[in-house]
Amino acid sequence: MAESPAPKRKREENEGENGAAGSHEEAPASDTFPLAELSVRRVLRESARDKTIFLHGQVKGASGDGSDAVVILEKTPFQEENVAELLTKYTKLQLQMSNDIYSTYRLFLPPELNEIKTTVVYPATEKHLQKYLHQEVYLIQETGEDYKNITLPFIESKSFSIQWVYNILEKKAEADRIIYENPDPANGFVLIPDLKWNQKQLDDLYLIAICHCRGIKSLRDLTAEHLPLLRNILKEGKEAIVKRFGIAGAQLRIYLHYQPSYYHLHVHFTALSYDAPGCSVERAHLLSDVIENLELNSQYYQKRTLTFALRADEPLLKKFQESERV
Amino acid sequence: MAESPAPKRKREENEGENGAAGSHEEAPASDTFPLAELSVRRVLRESARDKTIFLHGQVKGASGDGSDAVVILEKTPFQEENVAELLTKYTKLQLQMSNDIYSTYRLFLPPELNEIKTTVVYPATEKHLQKYLHQEVYLIQETGEDYKNITLPFIESKSFSIQWVYNILEKKAEADRIIYENPDPANGFVLIPDLKWNQKQLDDLYLIAICHCRGIKSLRDLTAEHLPLLRNILKEGKEAIVKRFGIAGAQLRIYLHYQPSYYHLHVHFTALSYDAPGCSVERAHLLSDVIENLELNSQYYQKRTLTFALRADEPLLKKFQESERV
Repeated sequence: MAESPAPKRKREENEGENGAAGSHEEAPASDTFPLAELSVRRVLRESARDKTIFLHGQVKGASGDGSDAVVILEKTPFQEENVAELLTKYTKLQLQMSNDIYSTYRLFLPPELNEIKTTVVYPATEKHLQKYLHQEVYLIQETGEDYKNITLPFIESKSFSIQWVYNILEKKAEADRIIYENPDPANGFVLIPDLKWNQKQLDDLYLIAICHCRGIKSLRDLTAEHLPLLRNILKEGKEAIVKRFGIAGAQLRIYLHYQPSYYHLHVHFTALSYDAPGCSVERAHLLSDVIENLELNSQYYQKRTLTFALRADEPLLKKFQESERV
Repeated sequence: MAESPAPKRKREENEGENGAAGSHEEAPASDTFPLAELSVRRVLRESARDKTIFLHGQVKGASGDGSDAVVILEKTPFQEENVAELLTKYTKLQLQMSNDIYSTYRLFLPPELNEIKTTVVYPATEKHLQKYLHQEVYLIQETGEDYKNITLPFIESKSFSIQWVYNILEKKAEADRIIYENPDPANGFVLIPDLKWNQKQLDDLYLIAICHCRGIKSLRDLTAEHLPLLRNILKEGKEAIVKRFGIAGAQLRIYLHYQPSYYHLHVHFTALSYDAPGCSVERAHLLSDVIENLELNSQYYQKRTLTFALRADEPLLKKFQESERV
C-alpha cells in the first residue's frame, strides 16, 4: 500500500519551513480533447490492482500547441445487471492454464460492454505531473544500530512541528471531535476520528488514539514501562468504540505505524473489513503484538530489526543509501 | 485486508469428501469451458476498486450436467508497452464532463486490447461457493494453547487434499511454469508464479515458493530446525526473481500467511509497490521477521499468540466460539 493512488488526506508533520503550496495558475477550458493527437511521453504511475494508468502526454499537430496533458485511464467496474449478457452473448474465450478443477482463460468482450473511464487534465502544469508521478519504493531493514546511527539523528535534525497534535491534546483545536479521553498525563490518551474518515458510514471507520505523554517518538521508544499506557489504549479504545459506534473489538484492527507519519506516539483503529491504507505488513504493527513483545522483553523494540518501505524521494532513504544500508 | 474485496483466485485446499479433487483423481482438463451455456445464479462478491466480480453459475445444456461453477472475472491491468497504441489508433471517445482544465470521457477499445482475465472453478462444491461469498470478519487471538486445543484438531479432522501442490512438486502439472527450483528434499523449494499474476507486467508481480518437505502445515510448525529452509527461500527466491524479472530484493514483500489457505508451507513474494490482497498486518508475517524470531527463540511460533481474521462462515470460527475464545 506504499503507493496508493487514493487521495492522501492524512495529516503529516509539517517541516518548519513550509515552502509547499505553489502558485495558483489557471489554464483555459477545452471542450474536446484531441486524444488522437496525443503523443505519450511517459507513464507517470500505474496500478495493477486498481487497473489504472496515469500518462504524461503532449498534444501536437493541428489542434494542439505542444502543451502537456495528464491522461488517466481506468477500467470500469463490472455491472451486476449486465454480467449475464457478458457471458452468454459475446464471448470469445481462450484457455491459458488448466490444473485439476481450476482453469484460467482470456475473455474478449465487445467494446461497448467494456469501456474505459478517461480523465484528462489539459493543459497540465509541472505541478500536476509531479502529483501523479510514481515513486519507486524500497524496503529498509533497520537494525537497532541503524536506528541510533541513521534514523534517530535524521528525525532530530528535522525539528518537525507537531503543533497540531498538541492543539488536540490541549483542547485548542478539534475539542468537539474527541470521542473519548483518559486524562492521565502518563498513561492517558485522546481518541479522535482520523481525518480520512467522514463518519458517515461505519465501513471505513478510522480513529486515532494520541497519547498525552510527550516524547515517545515511535515504536522504537517503547519499553515495558509503557505497558500501562498501551493496555489502556487497547482496552479503553475498544470500549469507547463499541459504545459510540457499536463496532466490537473483534471487528477492529488496532495498530501502530513504523515509520509513523509524525513522531508522537499514536495508535490506529480501523474497521477490520476496511482495506485501510497503511495496514500492510511492512508498515503496521498490531498493538496486541507490541504488548506481548514488550511483556516478553522490555528491550524488544530497541534491539529488533524493523522493516519498512521508503519512497525514492524521501530524505531518510538517502541517509540509508549513504550508509550503504539499502 | 481480512475481507479484502480483492480477487481471491489463489488455490485452496479441497476437503477430502470433495469428489472433484479428492485423493489422486484428476478432473479432466476441459479445453473449452462452455461459457455460453453458463446460467448465472447470483453474484457472490464484487469489488469496484479491483474491477472484479465473482459469480455462481450452473452449466446446463448439451455440454453441462447442471454442476455448479465459480466464475471470476477480472479486468486486466494496463500494459505500458501498448498504451500509446490504445490512445492513438483505435480510440472512440465520448465526452462526459468538462470543467476548467478537467474533463472525463468514455473510451471504447477493441477487444484484443482490453481482455478480461477469467478464472473458472468447475465443478465447484458448496465450500467453493461459500469461500467466495461476501462475509463479516472477526479477529481471533490464538494462543499456543488455542492452537493445540482448537485449531490443530480442526485442521486434522478435515483431511484437506492438497493434491494440486503435490502435482507441482512432482512436475505432474505446471512444470513449464516453474521459475526456480532447489531440489533438496529437506531444504529445497519450487518457485512458481501465483495464479493471480498473469506475468504480463511487473507491477503486480506475485510468486509463491512451495517447500519440498511435506508435513510443515504452517507458521505454527516452524522451529529453528527450519531455518536453513527459510533462509534458502529468502535468499534464492530473491536471486531467482532479480535474475528472471529484474526486480531487486529491496522491492519485494516476502511473507507467510497465518492462517494460510492451504496447510503445506509456502511463502508469498509480491512487488512491494503492489497493494496485494492478503498482505495486511492481521494475516501476513514477513519472512525476515519469522527468521529473526526463530533465531531468538526456536519455540517462538509454538508459544506465541497469533492474530488472524476469520469470516463468519468459516467452521474454525465456530470452534473458537464454542470454546468461548472469541
